[in-house]
Amino acid sequence: MSDLKLNEKLETAIWIAKSLFDRNRTTGSSANMSFAHEGKIYITQSGSCFGTLKAEQFAVLDMDGNILSENKPSKEWPLHLQIYQKKPETGAVIHTHGSYAVLWSFVPCENENDVIPDHTPYLKMKLGTVGMIPYEKPGSEALFKAFGDRVENSDGYLLKQHGAVVPGKNLLDAFYSIEELEESAKIAWMLHQKAL
Amino acid sequence: MSDLKLNEKLETAIWIAKSLFDRNRTTGSSANMSFAHEGKIYITQSGSCFGTLKAEQFAVLDMDGNILSENKPSKEWPLHLQIYQKKPETGAVIHTHGSYAVLWSFVPCENENDVIPDHTPYLKMKLGTVGMIPYEKPGSEALFKAFGDRVENSDGYLLKQHGAVVPGKNLLDAFYSIEELEESAKIAWMLHQKAL
Amino acid sequence: MSDLKLNEKLETAIWIAKSLFDRNRTTGSSANMSFAHEGKIYITQSGSCFGTLKAEQFAVLDMDGNILSENKPSKEWPLHLQIYQKKPETGAVIHTHGSYAVLWSFVPCENENDVIPDHTPYLKMKLGTVGMIPYEKPGSEALFKAFGDRVENSDGYLLKQHGAVVPGKNLLDAFYSIEELEESAKIAWMLHQKAL
Amino acid sequence: MSDLKLNEKLETAIWIAKSLFDRNRTTGSSANMSFAHEGKIYITQSGSCFGTLKAEQFAVLDMDGNILSENKPSKEWPLHLQIYQKKPETGAVIHTHGSYAVLWSFVPCENENDVIPDHTPYLKMKLGTVGMIPYEKPGSEALFKAFGDRVENSDGYLLKQHGAVVPGKNLLDAFYSIEELEESAKIAWMLHQKAL
Repeated sequence: MSDLKLNEKLETAIWIAKSLFDRNRTTGSSANMSFAHEGKIYITQSGSCFGTLKAEQFAVLDMDGNILSENKPSKEWPLHLQIYQKKPETGAVIHTHGSYAVLWSFVPCENENDVIPDHTPYLKMKLGTVGMIPYEKPGSEALFKAFGDRVENSDGYLLKQHGAVVPGKNLLDAFYSIEELEESAKIAWMLHQKAL
Repeated sequence: MSDLKLNEKLETAIWIAKSLFDRNRTTGSSANMSFAHEGKIYITQSGSCFGTLKAEQFAVLDMDGNILSENKPSKEWPLHLQIYQKKPETGAVIHTHGSYAVLWSFVPCENENDVIPDHTPYLKMKLGTVGMIPYEKPGSEALFKAFGDRVENSDGYLLKQHGAVVPGKNLLDAFYSIEELEESAKIAWMLHQKAL
Repeated sequence: MSDLKLNEKLETAIWIAKSLFDRNRTTGSSANMSFAHEGKIYITQSGSCFGTLKAEQFAVLDMDGNILSENKPSKEWPLHLQIYQKKPETGAVIHTHGSYAVLWSFVPCENENDVIPDHTPYLKMKLGTVGMIPYEKPGSEALFKAFGDRVENSDGYLLKQHGAVVPGKNLLDAFYSIEELEESAKIAWMLHQKAL
Repeated sequence: MSDLKLNEKLETAIWIAKSLFDRNRTTGSSANMSFAHEGKIYITQSGSCFGTLKAEQFAVLDMDGNILSENKPSKEWPLHLQIYQKKPETGAVIHTHGSYAVLWSFVPCENENDVIPDHTPYLKMKLGTVGMIPYEKPGSEALFKAFGDRVENSDGYLLKQHGAVVPGKNLLDAFYSIEELEESAKIAWMLHQKAL
């Protein structure tokens, strides 16, 4: 029963990954994704590609960050872990380098806890606020610390010069939110271009 | 015979949904679609995703707006219903948040009943005029009222800061029209950028 | 043997159509395509969609423009016919409304028989020159006349405010040319934006 | 065992080709790709299309550039060969005309051995530096000489008014690098537009 549930989550995760990749919403091997199952975190392994993700390419962590699998998790796993630890309602986390999310992270913002303007109401309705995390080297302790200091200040995150991180109560919820975040960043970018 | 017809319509609707999703013409769970069959309206259920739409994910309404199915219809169902009621030749309605339709809804227009310029002749040939519906909260009574007040003033609709709504005499007709609307909005937006 | 050859051409045409549609290089029902086989012209039927094109959706013409099939040809068939008549080496013709081809048709040009600049050498290498055809109503006698007057002045064509028409010695040759034309128009448009 | 290995490489190459094509990261017949296997170079044949690439469409060269197969290699094969000769750790090379790689090749740069700015850290992390190769006619001796003179000056290459060339230690490594190069060129182009 529980394995059935795990297989369903893996199938959903793989569909999401392939869909994001096939529609150019992530590229190469730069994205990662995780979900919670029976108190453990299943996360895409280091170097995996969303276009070819398979069930055997997940690593497993416990909620203290101990690696339980032979598969090595994505090096960004501490970002995921901190969300699960500080927001216990989280069932899944998706991280991508969507082009417009990255572009918008270069635009100066007034409120660093709510950086994407409400040109349409959908991002607030679906996800909530998106906070900016200052630039630190990908995979570095400095990034994990900067992220941890701000994880409770907003509902989703833009990592400056890097990409978006979005939690959800389950995989599809996180998927719909990252879709909306990228779309909202695109509208914001294009209206901003026009305003210049 | 009639069920055969219903199955054909469901198959067409599912193909349209997946095609719009796979080609980035809608994202996440933001689109909805309906068609008329034997005096009833079949509409995608609340929260469904065009990328994974299935035949069992439709709700059924009668022409007075009574919900006949266990499935809950998209919360935008009153937009659909008002078109079927006021334009009885309507066989299908598609609503998406196409990026360029949304962007163009921010550009001030002279004639609110015909807001997309005729840079090419195709939108007028395929659909006709597109009117602007002022912004109201998605799913709100205020939006349904604003829409109802204007539903007979144009052939298709841009909901300000929200997306496009397009009726057709059947599903493919509505599909071809929403394709052309998004393409025309793209051309309009890009030529407008240039003109600035 | 000859039917085998016809089936191969139909298969190639259907692959091209679906590929152009799935990659957003044409949308809705706006494109059409033809190929020559044993002295006849096979052309997509009126109202067909490149996303769902089937072998039974072709109409057949002779080289004088007599319709030999029950299927009604695309209303743009006289554009195709004039190319086959005046350029007998032609084996196939593709017409699409690629976004950048349409956009570039709005940019004033110095030489109306060679309107796409050589930012890269590929369009000239693959196809040759592209001439501008002045705007006339789609499917009108005036358009067919304007086209006929200029068909021998260039290797491919931009119909102003409308789209591109490209002949090839066979289907794949025409396909590679229309791919390059759209890509060259995209580069031209984006560099032109920058230059403003 | 060795044939098994060869088949695996061919399968990977075909997946990469189709994936680049289906996601609009290359078009028409303009891309080419090679990999090393047991001291020989397998390269896509002249005129092949990434959308329909098959295992039987590879040509074979030895490391001195002798053609060992009946299949004729892509006319850009001397670009590939020079990389394998001068960078013996190379296991694969991919060349595409990505739109943003081409566009960025028109932007004047300060350091011709490192022309793509580090707006995000990923290109440097994944590939390294990208050098500019001055424009010469595609397939010409002059291009091969200009390339050979600069092949050791950077990790990847932009051919001016032409496209990108990227080596990798294996096929997937080269694939991830060309994905990141195109994405980095897109971010660079769009931020540059804004800065004007």
